[in-house]
Amino acid sequence: MISAEQPINFTRGVPADESFPLEQLADCATTVLSGRTGTQVMQYGPSRGYAPLREWLAACHSVSPDQVLLGNGSLQLIDFLGLGLLQPGDLVLVESPTYDRVLTLLRRRGARVLGLPLDADGPDIAALEEILQRETPKLLYLIPDFQNPSGATMSAAKRKRVVELAEQHGVILVEDAPYRPLRYRGEILPSLFELAPHRTLHLTSFSKQISPGVRVGYMIGAADTVTRLAKMAEDTYITPNLLGQATVYEFCQRGLLEPQLDRLRALYGQRLLAIADALRTQLPAAEWIEPDGGFFLSVTLPEGTTGAELCQRAAEVKLNLSDGCGFFPNPSDGERFLRLPFCALTPEQLAEGVHRLASIVDAPSS
Amino acid sequence: MISAEQPINFTRGVPADESFPLEQLADCATTVLSGRTGTQVMQYGPSRGYAPLREWLAACHSVSPDQVLLGNGSLQLIDFLGLGLLQPGDLVLVESPTYDRVLTLLRRRGARVLGLPLDADGPDIAALEEILQRETPKLLYLIPDFQNPSGATMSAAKRKRVVELAEQHGVILVEDAPYRPLRYRGEILPSLFELAPHRTLHLTSFSKQISPGVRVGYMIGAADTVTRLAKMAEDTYITPNLLGQATVYEFCQRGLLEPQLDRLRALYGQRLLAIADALRTQLPAAEWIEPDGGFFLSVTLPEGTTGAELCQRAAEVKLNLSDGCGFFPNPSDGERFLRLPFCALTPEQLAEGVHRLASIVDAPSS
Repeated sequence: MISAEQPINFTRGVPADESFPLEQLADCATTVLSGRTGTQVMQYGPSRGYAPLREWLAACHSVSPDQVLLGNGSLQLIDFLGLGLLQPGDLVLVESPTYDRVLTLLRRRGARVLGLPLDADGPDIAALEEILQRETPKLLYLIPDFQNPSGATMSAAKRKRVVELAEQHGVILVEDAPYRPLRYRGEILPSLFELAPHRTLHLTSFSKQISPGVRVGYMIGAADTVTRLAKMAEDTYITPNLLGQATVYEFCQRGLLEPQLDRLRALYGQRLLAIADALRTQLPAAEWIEPDGGFFLSVTLPEGTTGAELCQRAAEVKLNLSDGCGFFPNPSDGERFLRLPFCALTPEQLAEGVHRLASIVDAPSS
Repeated sequence: MISAEQPINFTRGVPADESFPLEQLADCATTVLSGRTGTQVMQYGPSRGYAPLREWLAACHSVSPDQVLLGNGSLQLIDFLGLGLLQPGDLVLVESPTYDRVLTLLRRRGARVLGLPLDADGPDIAALEEILQRETPKLLYLIPDFQNPSGATMSAAKRKRVVELAEQHGVILVEDAPYRPLRYRGEILPSLFELAPHRTLHLTSFSKQISPGVRVGYMIGAADTVTRLAKMAEDTYITPNLLGQATVYEFCQRGLLEPQLDRLRALYGQRLLAIADALRTQLPAAEWIEPDGGFFLSVTLPEGTTGAELCQRAAEVKLNLSDGCGFFPNPSDGERFLRLPFCALTPEQLAEGVHRLASIVDAPSS
């Protein structure tokens, strides 16, 4: 039983604290710091990252090691991508809504950002075609699997069509796929990288698979792009976090990654069922996207309610919500949008959170 | 006895492999990963860094914890400084020569960079006064202690004058001080931060004190500047390398830092004596700056010799040298400049390296 005084946070999309394999990581880190590897990871080293992990990942993705760039989380690789591939004023297309931190980095670089309206099965293809008739974007940034912040997954048909259009118009696809291994039901769909390896930069990370604290993200892409971005990385921090990378490598080569992912899918899959049940029961009139994996589910509020207004009322019932506007290239498009991250809350907290949400959504607006 | 086939590298300024306290670091990392701290450092966390280390450093520098920003090495903090404090076209003054990677980051931000000629006792004050009469730079970037790449240390008188001029003209001082704890002889001079805490951003790191692989640098400065740069950090990588930071904190609070610094001063102090003796004996006519600490010593080649030419001849005797031009805001000023990093070579390697250098400097140019 959760007391009414206990806050429920539907704010940041973070993994569950109890999901981190701390003992295994401590043991892997100790092994890494012993002997020759220890000296290697404590010294300055290659800006593209720890070679054994690059080789291991290359084998996983059926590419060559010179197509793998490791970084301190994948967000920063987006910054390098902006520095290495974009000029101020270049057009970048994104889904609307999309990951808010990527919008910040694209704007830092002075990119013009346009959003493609997002449906439950992916971006609006007609809107994409319409823009491509007028001009050619430099990049098309997409999160095909269990999208942040919406929870949407792009259908196989839309993936195929996006790739065709990218080929026709010479657009580079940036596929951000940190949630891809966390599918709780349904069939795995081909990644954009698998469909168009020569024109896709595939970004992902161990933050959601092992822990954010290992600070290991990576990009798979064309070798010349990897080389260019590795120069940006060297200019920025000389050497990435080799200790984290070597610890992840040790973890993976001991065969610990698959059992860890199985545990996460079991833990988070239950949580997805819990929040979905609660929404169906307690907010039957709400419009929402039911995800098949990942960290997020999103709700579109009834007409006349705004997220900002709701956040205020939520605070009164100790419910912490994020305003949805930041996820939209055009912020006012997000006034009725609510992102609900569900992985770091227990089924009880999720049910209580949705209960509180229902109590304020149904309340007459002041 | 070193065979003529064995290469000697006077290239990168890295610590000695044998200087890393691997067992202590492994033990500290294991402690960190146990229990509550483990969960904390494996989760997303504060962009300004691990709070206990910030508090510990605040006490060391007699400042408040909100004046401490931790980052993944100190170079990247320079990138944040450019993003947070500089507009394209802003003037930044540096020593000439200066740390080449900082020139790259300043240029990335579109800054105009002017160099102050550097003498053995610090930058040319008349040149600084002359520029300040014409215009006000946004930043004055200086490496007062055992400068990279020259080995020069700014005299007490010059420090005082630089601070006076910065006060008069409203210039922010950026003091890069990674080598400051590595003084092998002579008296410690006051830092610019100690002389003018309200207008100095003091940058340093554990890369040269413990190991580059911990990836922990930090800035001490005004609280509002720290807040602004912490936002740049959050936008870039969300969370820094908390595992490295907590491991360094554990190392420091166990009292291991001072004995480690004592070991480094003993190890590197011997190496400085060895290279200085070799230069005096084997290149008696060379002009060079004899440092009192740090990683670097620099030689000005005889008129008519250029570094590029020398690098080529050096390769024939298996001596690897870096071209000096990259250290100068105006590259052609560095044609006769040679940086000799001495910490990662044994006394025997240093003597042999200088012997090979003497053999090609004295050779008639082709």
